[in-house]
This record gives sequence, structure tokens and C-alpha cells, in this order.
Amino acid sequence: MNLYSKKHLHNFVQHVFTKCGMPAADAFQAAEVLISADLRGIDSHGVARLSGYVRLFEAGRANFNAKHKIIHETPSTATIDADAGLGLVVAPKAMDIAIEKAKNVGTGWVAIQNSNHFGIAGYHAMKALPHDMIGIAMTNASPLVAPTFSKERMLGTNPICMAFPSGNQQPFVIDMATSNAANGKLEIAQRAKKEIPLGWVQTKNGDASVNANELKSGGSLLPLGGHKGYGLGAAVDILSAVLSGANYGPWVPPFVAFLNPLENLPGNGIGHFLGAMRIDAFRPAADFKLHMDNWILRFKEAERIDPDQEVLIPGEPEFKMQEEREKIGIPLIEAVENDLQTLAQKLGLTL
Amino acid sequence: MNLYSKKHLHNFVQHVFTKCGMPAADAFQAAEVLISADLRGIDSHGVARLSGYVRLFEAGRANFNAKHKIIHETPSTATIDADAGLGLVVAPKAMDIAIEKAKNVGTGWVAIQNSNHFGIAGYHAMKALPHDMIGIAMTNASPLVAPTFSKERMLGTNPICMAFPSGNQQPFVIDMATSNAANGKLEIAQRAKKEIPLGWVQTKNGDASVNANELKSGGSLLPLGGHKGYGLGAAVDILSAVLSGANYGPWVPPFVAFLNPLENLPGNGIGHFLGAMRIDAFRPAADFKLHMDNWILRFKEAERIDPDQEVLIPGEPEFKMQEEREKIGIPLIEAVENDLQTLAQKLGLTL
Repeated sequence: MNLYSKKHLHNFVQHVFTKCGMPAADAFQAAEVLISADLRGIDSHGVARLSGYVRLFEAGRANFNAKHKIIHETPSTATIDADAGLGLVVAPKAMDIAIEKAKNVGTGWVAIQNSNHFGIAGYHAMKALPHDMIGIAMTNASPLVAPTFSKERMLGTNPICMAFPSGNQQPFVIDMATSNAANGKLEIAQRAKKEIPLGWVQTKNGDASVNANELKSGGSLLPLGGHKGYGLGAAVDILSAVLSGANYGPWVPPFVAFLNPLENLPGNGIGHFLGAMRIDAFRPAADFKLHMDNWILRFKEAERIDPDQEVLIPGEPEFKMQEEREKIGIPLIEAVENDLQTLAQKLGLTL
Repeated sequence: MNLYSKKHLHNFVQHVFTKCGMPAADAFQAAEVLISADLRGIDSHGVARLSGYVRLFEAGRANFNAKHKIIHETPSTATIDADAGLGLVVAPKAMDIAIEKAKNVGTGWVAIQNSNHFGIAGYHAMKALPHDMIGIAMTNASPLVAPTFSKERMLGTNPICMAFPSGNQQPFVIDMATSNAANGKLEIAQRAKKEIPLGWVQTKNGDASVNANELKSGGSLLPLGGHKGYGLGAAVDILSAVLSGANYGPWVPPFVAFLNPLENLPGNGIGHFLGAMRIDAFRPAADFKLHMDNWILRFKEAERIDPDQEVLIPGEPEFKMQEEREKIGIPLIEAVENDLQTLAQKLGLTL
């Protein structure tokens, strides 16, 4: 496992995207989102996905020269057609629009259609924080999760992120898939050849399973905590796609280039839903941040079960990881390193 | 188990509240919310709670003559001081404000402080549906749920409801606690003297338990699906209370009159957060509803695990229950019937 500096990987990602014809500013933005995932320890959503984006581009399914446009608008809302670009590029722009609307009328909400994978939801939601706003980001994703009582893959892992500003404490950031486990956790178990906990996956017949490779033989992921997670993932699907005009449910195009989208799609690309709420549209921001600090400090002091295991605040492990990786660098496992080297070679770059 | 018609129970609830000095229109509204819970089969949130509201009133903790006021406002937001009234009364009024704002600028969001229990979240969110809007409702609640790694009750069951309009199909309504099980399910197991599934509660020492009475000996409820549910319940707490100026976390006043609120509270009463988003602020409502019907029909057809167990759409069981109870009446278990009869006697009414 070798370590790479943030700057080094950022430059590499940027070069890969520009080499594929992406405008420099967009390539910079896409690199920002990807590297933020690696820094925060969400390795499954960082540079590990870079070659996948390039394959989607080569397959003609991701437009690296996309010009997004607002196709519908009110003072507090907008709907955006992402022109088949990467969510990595359009979602930050859409978040800027949401923030601008929140400045004007208190809140801003943007639904996006005709997009592709947007990286970690956390990056987009956290853009609201420096503006003393609450940020919200969600997206649908290619179907891997079965609804309760079903064995069919109908929903993506459909993540939700909510980020709340605080005062002296780190912000509160919850960034979670609406399945019990996201694919990244299965991959870790696969590499370690370990069994996974019951409840993460089921077989293609709908039986319980502890096999981390179950998805490869037609199995499905299970929704967070049972039927509630199914409802939550479904709500994310509807907000991201039925509201924006993107594809939903089993029609969401696969993230991998070797699987083709279904025919007769009901919408365009995949969908995201973003929001920004200005704190002082509800109460003075200083009051809110004071109470957020109080909230955080009180929860950190909650009585522990194991005296050595502290109670964590959502987002805390990621902030700690980011601090560490800014200092020591980003570790890449061999498989990812090899993948990036192959990509570099193909494009005449060096990792 | 005796059956009562909707109208009969509605009148009774109204009489109880007016007898305690609540203005007639407010008593009607409160009855609407309570009876909607019984009709939908959420028996734990219907007339079973009526005497509890009266006890809060008698203890001087719920103001039955409350005059709510808007204390902060932008075109898309408002913060309301509920004047220590019942959430049953103020939340529908706040939802009307959210809907009005959504008519004007696309979306409307209302944070409420200084309130009390608001009944089922579903009633409030569903008020948006006839306006072709998406409705959102959440509330914090008195602390029963322990954060991950903790054995201390720090969060309520903090429910979230999201209601989406549809065309020919029933609307999609997800209305869920952010704990694995809400108190109502424990009560059912207590009455049946049955064990509960692992994961619902833990002992006061933080050990796993299948004892439905665990809360009575200092145990706590567990968040939905582990740490994600903790984060989700926490986000509901922050939106409902830190944003509105209500009490949060362990400071949320108990719903029962025999437990006193803590001292040095950081806010006022309990908090709610409500939202309304106009569909045609994003895309034409007719298009959205067409695709919602398509979504619903496709999910109903998802491959079943057990051929006899159909895949359900969130809200479907409640709509079926409502249809049945509108016809045959609302069944009250003996304990609830006795409780209401005692209340009736005390107030010089008949059930």
C-alpha cells in the first residue's frame, strides 16, 4: 500500500479528465470531489472510481463536455438538465444555485436529471456550511437493493447527506447509504475473504446470506433496518428522479460501462436532489451554532457502554481521517494503484 | 374489543378538549389528527393518548388556549412559537403556512418551538397532497433511544414522514420512527407477553435484550439499523429543535405528566419541522403523477420471495386500514376504553 499526497492525486485526476477532453475548470471540480472522498476515508468513492468514469465516457454514456441548463425554476427551486455530464461536475454547480436561492428567499432546492454518478454526497452538502446554511444532498443509483418481500434489485444504495454548521466543534455531517451496507463494505470483505454480517445481502432466491460475493450470483443488498430503509431509499429515488425527470427504480442506468441501460427508459440519466437552507432564515446563525456545539458536547458525554469506546458524532471519523490523510497522504491499495497505472499508460500520463 | 364509529370518537375527543377550555376550532383540529391515527391503524397515536394530553394540561404543561405566533420569517421559511400548545393544533396551522409559501416561491419550511406532541407525522405531511405538493413532517420526542456505543437515553423515536402525490394510485407515504421499533410495538408485545426481536432494545447496561419491558428498568430503544439510525434521529432532532429554538436531545420534556422536565433547559418545549414542495416548481404535476403511478405499479410487480406475500408500497397498509375502519369502525382495546371512560366520567361526559 503506497501513499500519495492529496495534491499529487488531484493533479493526476485532473490530467486524466482533461486528456479525455473535459474543460479544465470541470476537470478541477471533478478532481476536488473525488479526492475529498479519499481524504475522508470513503475510498470506494474516490480515485478507485476514476477508470470507471473514463469507461463510461469511452462508451459514449458520459458527456465530458456537458453544458448543463436550468429547465424549470421558481424563487426557491430549479430543475437542471445535466446534459449527460458527470454528477461530479454538475452537482457542485447545482449546489451553488441552491445556495444562491437560499440567500434570496431562505432556502434553495435543485433537482437534477440526465446526470451520472456524483461521487460522495457529503462533498455537495458540505458546500453549504461556509455560508451558515444546512446542506442536503441525495442521489439515486443503479439498482442493487431489493424492496422488502422482494428478491429483485429495484433501488440503488441511494445515499442521503445532511450537513449542519456548528461553532467551535466540527460540523455534524451524516452521509449514509439507505442500504444496510454499501458496496464498498462488501468489497472490503471480499478482499479479506471474510463472511459478512447477516442482513447485508440476500441470495437470488431471497434467502439470508453471509457471502460477500452474493451480488455476483444474482443476490441483492438489503435496505437499512428492513422496510423503513426500503421506504427511505424509495423516497430518495422519487426526490432525485421522479421529481427531476431522471430514470428511477430498476431503470436507473448501471454505473459500469459493461452493462447496458434497459430499453424504453422513463427518464434521462440518473437523478440527484440538493438543498440549502439558510440558518438565519429560521433563527440567528450564532444562536444555532452555540446550541449545535452544546448538542455535540452533550452527545459526546453520553454514558458509554464500553468505557474505551467513545460516543461518536456523525462525521467525526471522517474529519479525523481527513486530518490524518492531509498530513500523511492517501493510501492506495495495490488493485487501485494498478488500475490507475493502466489508465495512465493508456492516456500517456504517469501516476 | 368494541367498535366505535369515526364520528362518535371524533365528537368525544372534541368534547374532552372543549371541556378543558380549548377553543372549538382547535378542539376540532386536534380531534381530526387523533382520529386520523386510529383510522390509519396507528393506534398508539390516536385516542389512546387523549388522557395523556389532558394530564399534561392539568399539570400546567400544555396550554389549551395557545396563540401561536410567527417569530421569524423569509419568503420560503418561518419559525413559530407554539405558545406551549399541543402540536396537534399548531402543526396543521404551520403546515398551512408552509403550503402558502410553497404556492408563492416553490417551497415552504416551518420550524416550530415551544410545542407539545403533534400526533402522527403522517397527518401533517399529507395535508400537502391535495395541493399537488410533497409534504414533509418530523418532530423530536422525549428521550428513549441510545446513540450507538451509549447506554443513555438521548433521543426520541424522532419520526419522519414524507408524502408524495400520485395519479390513479394511492399516494406514497412513508411515516417512520428513526428507532428500530417505536413504543407502540413494545406495548403490543407487553400485552401479549411475548419476546421481542433482538435489536429493538438494550438493557440499562447496554446489553442485547428480548424483554419487551426493558424500558421500565432503565433500558433504551435502539436506533434504526445501527449508527445510521442514530445519525438520522439526530438530524431530526436538530431540524426540529436546534433550528427552531426548542429543547433537544436529553432535554426534550417527557410526554408523560408524572415525569418533570429537567432544569436549565436550553430551549422551549419540543420542536417540529414541516415542509411543502410544490411539484410544478420542478416539473409539471401531471408528468410527476404519471411517473409516480408508473413507479408504484412497477414496484408492486417486483419479484416476490414468497408468492403469497406481495411487495408493499409505503403507506399502502395504512390506506387499506383506513378504508376498512371508515366502514366497520375503530376497535378500542379494553384498556383504552376504560381509560376513556374514566376520563369521560371525570369531565361529566359519556364515551
